[in-house]
Amino acid sequence: MDSRIKLNSFEFHKGNIGGIWEALRTVEKGSPEDALTWEKVNIPHCYNSFDSVDPNIPYYQGPSWYRKTIEINNPHKNGNTFIFFEGAGQIIDVYLDKKHIHTHFGGYDEWKIDLTPYLIKNKTKYKLIIKCDNSRNLNTIPSDLSDFTIFGGLYRNIHLIYEPELFIQNLYLTPKYNEINKSGELVIKVEFNKVPKNCKLKISIKDKNNQKQKEFNILENKEIFKLKVNFDRVDSWSPNFPNLYTCEIKTEDSTVSDFFGFRSYKFEKNGPFYLNGNKLLLKGTHRHEDHAAMGAAQSLESITEEMNLIKEMGANFIRLGHYQQNRAVLNLCDKLGILVWEEIPWCRGGLGNSTYKDMGKRMLINMINQHYNHPSIIIWGLGNENDWPGDFETFDKEEIKKYMKELNNLSHKLDNSRKTAIRRCDFAKEIVDVYSPSIWAGWYRGHYKEYKEATIKHINSVNHFLHVEWGADSHMNRFSENPNCELNNIKMGMGTDERSNEASLFGGISRVSKDGTWSENYACDLFDWTLKEQFDIPNLTGTAFWPFKDFSTPLRKDNPIPYINQKGVVQRDLTKKEVFYVVQSYWSNTPMLRLFGHQWKIRWGELLEEKEFRVYSNCQKVELFLDGKSLGIKERNISNFPATGFRWKSQLEEGKHNLKAIAYSNNNILSDEYSFYYQCKKWGIPKKINSKFIEENNKFFWEIEVVDSTNIRCLDFREKVNFSSTFPSPLVTNMGTSTGSKVIECANGRSIIELNNTGIGSILSAYIEGLPICYEKYSPRRIND
Amino acid sequence: MDSRIKLNSFEFHKGNIGGIWEALRTVEKGSPEDALTWEKVNIPHCYNSFDSVDPNIPYYQGPSWYRKTIEINNPHKNGNTFIFFEGAGQIIDVYLDKKHIHTHFGGYDEWKIDLTPYLIKNKTKYKLIIKCDNSRNLNTIPSDLSDFTIFGGLYRNIHLIYEPELFIQNLYLTPKYNEINKSGELVIKVEFNKVPKNCKLKISIKDKNNQKQKEFNILENKEIFKLKVNFDRVDSWSPNFPNLYTCEIKTEDSTVSDFFGFRSYKFEKNGPFYLNGNKLLLKGTHRHEDHAAMGAAQSLESITEEMNLIKEMGANFIRLGHYQQNRAVLNLCDKLGILVWEEIPWCRGGLGNSTYKDMGKRMLINMINQHYNHPSIIIWGLGNENDWPGDFETFDKEEIKKYMKELNNLSHKLDNSRKTAIRRCDFAKEIVDVYSPSIWAGWYRGHYKEYKEATIKHINSVNHFLHVEWGADSHMNRFSENPNCELNNIKMGMGTDERSNEASLFGGISRVSKDGTWSENYACDLFDWTLKEQFDIPNLTGTAFWPFKDFSTPLRKDNPIPYINQKGVVQRDLTKKEVFYVVQSYWSNTPMLRLFGHQWKIRWGELLEEKEFRVYSNCQKVELFLDGKSLGIKERNISNFPATGFRWKSQLEEGKHNLKAIAYSNNNILSDEYSFYYQCKKWGIPKKINSKFIEENNKFFWEIEVVDSTNIRCLDFREKVNFSSTFPSPLVTNMGTSTGSKVIECANGRSIIELNNTGIGSILSAYIEGLPICYEKYSPRRIND
Repeated sequence: MDSRIKLNSFEFHKGNIGGIWEALRTVEKGSPEDALTWEKVNIPHCYNSFDSVDPNIPYYQGPSWYRKTIEINNPHKNGNTFIFFEGAGQIIDVYLDKKHIHTHFGGYDEWKIDLTPYLIKNKTKYKLIIKCDNSRNLNTIPSDLSDFTIFGGLYRNIHLIYEPELFIQNLYLTPKYNEINKSGELVIKVEFNKVPKNCKLKISIKDKNNQKQKEFNILENKEIFKLKVNFDRVDSWSPNFPNLYTCEIKTEDSTVSDFFGFRSYKFEKNGPFYLNGNKLLLKGTHRHEDHAAMGAAQSLESITEEMNLIKEMGANFIRLGHYQQNRAVLNLCDKLGILVWEEIPWCRGGLGNSTYKDMGKRMLINMINQHYNHPSIIIWGLGNENDWPGDFETFDKEEIKKYMKELNNLSHKLDNSRKTAIRRCDFAKEIVDVYSPSIWAGWYRGHYKEYKEATIKHINSVNHFLHVEWGADSHMNRFSENPNCELNNIKMGMGTDERSNEASLFGGISRVSKDGTWSENYACDLFDWTLKEQFDIPNLTGTAFWPFKDFSTPLRKDNPIPYINQKGVVQRDLTKKEVFYVVQSYWSNTPMLRLFGHQWKIRWGELLEEKEFRVYSNCQKVELFLDGKSLGIKERNISNFPATGFRWKSQLEEGKHNLKAIAYSNNNILSDEYSFYYQCKKWGIPKKINSKFIEENNKFFWEIEVVDSTNIRCLDFREKVNFSSTFPSPLVTNMGTSTGSKVIECANGRSIIELNNTGIGSILSAYIEGLPICYEKYSPRRIND
Repeated sequence: MDSRIKLNSFEFHKGNIGGIWEALRTVEKGSPEDALTWEKVNIPHCYNSFDSVDPNIPYYQGPSWYRKTIEINNPHKNGNTFIFFEGAGQIIDVYLDKKHIHTHFGGYDEWKIDLTPYLIKNKTKYKLIIKCDNSRNLNTIPSDLSDFTIFGGLYRNIHLIYEPELFIQNLYLTPKYNEINKSGELVIKVEFNKVPKNCKLKISIKDKNNQKQKEFNILENKEIFKLKVNFDRVDSWSPNFPNLYTCEIKTEDSTVSDFFGFRSYKFEKNGPFYLNGNKLLLKGTHRHEDHAAMGAAQSLESITEEMNLIKEMGANFIRLGHYQQNRAVLNLCDKLGILVWEEIPWCRGGLGNSTYKDMGKRMLINMINQHYNHPSIIIWGLGNENDWPGDFETFDKEEIKKYMKELNNLSHKLDNSRKTAIRRCDFAKEIVDVYSPSIWAGWYRGHYKEYKEATIKHINSVNHFLHVEWGADSHMNRFSENPNCELNNIKMGMGTDERSNEASLFGGISRVSKDGTWSENYACDLFDWTLKEQFDIPNLTGTAFWPFKDFSTPLRKDNPIPYINQKGVVQRDLTKKEVFYVVQSYWSNTPMLRLFGHQWKIRWGELLEEKEFRVYSNCQKVELFLDGKSLGIKERNISNFPATGFRWKSQLEEGKHNLKAIAYSNNNILSDEYSFYYQCKKWGIPKKINSKFIEENNKFFWEIEVVDSTNIRCLDFREKVNFSSTFPSPLVTNMGTSTGSKVIECANGRSIIELNNTGIGSILSAYIEGLPICYEKYSPRRIND
């Protein structure tokens, strides 16, 4: 019998309603009541999936409503019925028929509502009405000064749950691993919903192969039940071998079960980090719950694809900044072997009143209780950038420290098996177990070559250092023949941290983030150098670059893709950028090979100028062929920057060329290949926009290029293009990707937008200030003609 | 010294903010705080000026914020400083710096806030921060079931007012007129802000020519002061002679003054109506505060233009449905001689809780106190369509009657010189002084020829009958060769009232509103007949058609102009429809002449078919010329329907023709003339859209026409066209007019959209389902070429 029913379809109204009766009354077509529109949607659903990246409007921050008729038929005599939310944004009010039954503050934790007291005998149909509200709010966390979208909607799953009269409310599994003798211990804590009376419990523990390891039959009479189980020898959980055990507990009419894993870890004073007794460099990234066309309502499929990609890249660590994430993410971290720093959404703005503080504590309690059993989690994060003022008239460091201590104590009290951590709040760095300062060498400040010195200084300044958040924005498909010029005006010795308002594109000292071109080359150089250096700091615990995937943010309207934080190594739809392969070449153990610059369709320079070609690979040897001719075999040398020595030079004639790389790694042979054009002709002033249609992998695109008066592509042109269309529009927009935005900066004088190949056609237009507008007639059949 | 400072410019944020601090904190360019955008606007400002008529989205109903720095320098020692709102939508919260100082519920009345207690010595600069909220709200009036937009914003003027220590808070003028001997009496009531101490008052009363009629010097010691003044002979106030007197009262350091008028009126039992002892047929209309490109923030200029047009049309009466209107409107009614029924916004939905009821009463108290002195006002309206349920789970007629009685008593208690009235709530009709039932003969029910019978029946069913709200929608520029066919399926004898949900375009019995074509011809016929009949009911007090001007409504998305109630005799930008002239021909005393159908560019029929031509005029004689040849002189006969006998017939050849009319009225000779094309060719199935550019009165338009395969215009084609353009768009949209909407129904196979003749050009597109899309390149210079 299914005791957990996922609620899939709802009716949705964007905007507020005048009162609960507006959601309940019957409506005749065309009547005044009918002006309040309800649209059918499926859960998960986020009402900022598209507008969060619309270049022309700020995203909607306000209330919206969901409703559906639910049928409640709890099969258990005197059973308990719950509605369970895996999370929703941001303040949620729940009504059963016209009765307001619950308010939940917080967009990221789980909660359930006991419907039992509200149910009426013999009545099975109820209206479930839910108000979501993501209005700006100084009294809730996270702050609207945060550099990410604060989404609204029922963006995670919702379930109706039927429990019997007596059931297990909570199951806490606390495993211990003895790395010396490989023995294990498991403390099982069961919390019933009420005092049981001779409740027959059957507890069984199975290993990863579903083999029963232990079994207990118990008669229980207490509301809270504890059992300690010892194991002589266990398979430990680790990134390479994420062995998961299962603990299943059956009462007469219900079953609960959860995974757990045996592992031990240690942050040595001033590093390094040890897992199960072995030194492990934490190779990490970050992610937001934010995906093209989905917003925060990321499907399980895309979450799974994303986590698999993170694993494929070679990461063994992730910081789930800046809030408790979807349970599916943690399950995948357990399964894939990715260690986790999970944190509460106390992010930027300062510290509010007691309601605000209570919310922060509640978020911490819920995160720990709800994700307690995940073996992947090693750190509970207490906050991010809490040195950032702005939301309150006063900013009191002592108050913030005091509150941080409360959170730190609370975390240890709830879970003394895990560490606490924060990032970027220097005046509170002594409070937590693990601290990450701000180091953005080569991006928000300084040169990437200053990375190691800054890091070592920080390692020695706290007990347990871990560096989270570093990286560089890159505008996919934008390449540079001279990425070093980005560093021309950068002064060294001025620090490497991000300072007040220097993430912006305006004001302040010279920095690559503001003055650079956001080329893929530069991002690769920065990553290449930094990753190399990280391997060269023996006591480094680990790092996490920011972030794995591009995501939307209300703070970055003027970016090449408006409202997108472009620091991801993959785009918002998981398309890999070049820098993904750089990371993979350092971190992954699976042989890989990437000829840099597949989308660098045109390279440029003088006739017969010597140009460099790079390969990112973790294989021992790579041979490069230019136009079929070998340029030689190179051996991998991790300290040979750039590209671990996999770089070749050759003179180039103007025209089309072919590059091919072959990599050798033990028994593996890999190859990669692409063609490009070498342009020696110099371009003049941009004069015109040309355009063409492209079909690629069954997708359709419109590409525009900016050329001079003699039709030479202006390869350094990077102004914004405004794509538009007559009605009905085939443009794929508001995706926050390099091929899915109405407004986007050109990359090497070109820009591309995806088209829906359906409908009846239209006129497309590309507008760039100062140039004649480019028009093109598009009919869906045209491309295939 | 200016003691009243209009606050013109504000900064505006659409949407909610997270707390008052977000409006106060300083913001650096590009910083996270900067993501909250503030736009400069001028007052009056309405945040639904455009979106209320956007075909593609519902209008924004939610909070928005305004802020500005004000300088307060009250020149008076111990003076009092106020901020005075002429009205704003809908719930308003006012902050001075971070202090919340006032909440006002209600979008239409005036209020002021005493700032004095909040001012700090020697501080002159303050932040004035105002939140407007027009969210849907079941607990406030008017109901969102109302057939008009409930606008948000600071859509009327705001003033800073400096008063001395002692000042006159209220001045109530109660004039009486003795119609027999033409004598008058004026009761002056003055309310000070505090008890005066030997305050020297100088009272002077002047006539319309600014000649002093009376003067009094008084030493006053009471907080409330009353004076009765008698006049042997006065010039009465009437529509024809709106004589206004002035009463001015000076204290030592302040002056108040107001207009008043002497007039008497009487509703005879079962009619008719008398003004100053003379029978007067109330010839009335209605208006909403709603204008193209302005929404509720109608400028004084456009209000003045509109009221002048209403006067020009010949009206002597207006019902200001459905709320207290801008003080400028009442001033114009006084000045122009337009009698007024003003009402509170208790409109549709039912009756709410005590908060709701209190709001209704407060709206009545404020309306009466604030507009008490206007001689134009004869009726205080207590509600509209209060028989309309929907906003509450229960609908209790007895409760509604009880509340109506309370309002009625309250109105009489506050002002026993004026009548009370309601429209459409049959079960409460005995409560008020004057009652209007629902009569929509020929539109929402029945045939217009049923008008008189229905009206007479109603006249005899209540003591004081007055018919407000009748009329017909018309889609400007849509004409019909056979408007009578609209009535083909209309059954007579089924009643003439609008019933539950029959204003909608769906369901219910046959009615012209749903099944007709909304041609200008039909509206003219309906008005022509109804106006004629109204003159033929001797004891009729009067009527008011609904409304003077097209206005926006969230309930009518599917109308020919989406979201526009098209019953106006002028469009939302005051462009006259044909029906305007029909009314004028009945009501105006100034000679006028209109050849019907200036925009009926193509007429159609068989070769040499006899076609009719009409003239609307109030002149005694009109002669019509077709292609220069007289078709004879006709004499006006008000009972000769249609067009008071001004109609001619003639056979027509295919081709271009000229019509000219000359009217003779005493010493006046008027003429009107236009050309049209007579089309005999029959059109087939619509196949294609042609288009051309038009320049008219320095405005630029794109006209499209739908033709068959042989290029013959399909003159009965009336499907929706969707106008669009590439970026930047020159289309003038969201005006709610026949030339200013992205989506609009064709009229006789054509449609027109206005263009901004600036910018750099674009491609225009006209999309009609089932037809090939029509594209046209537009460059601003092109039209003039």
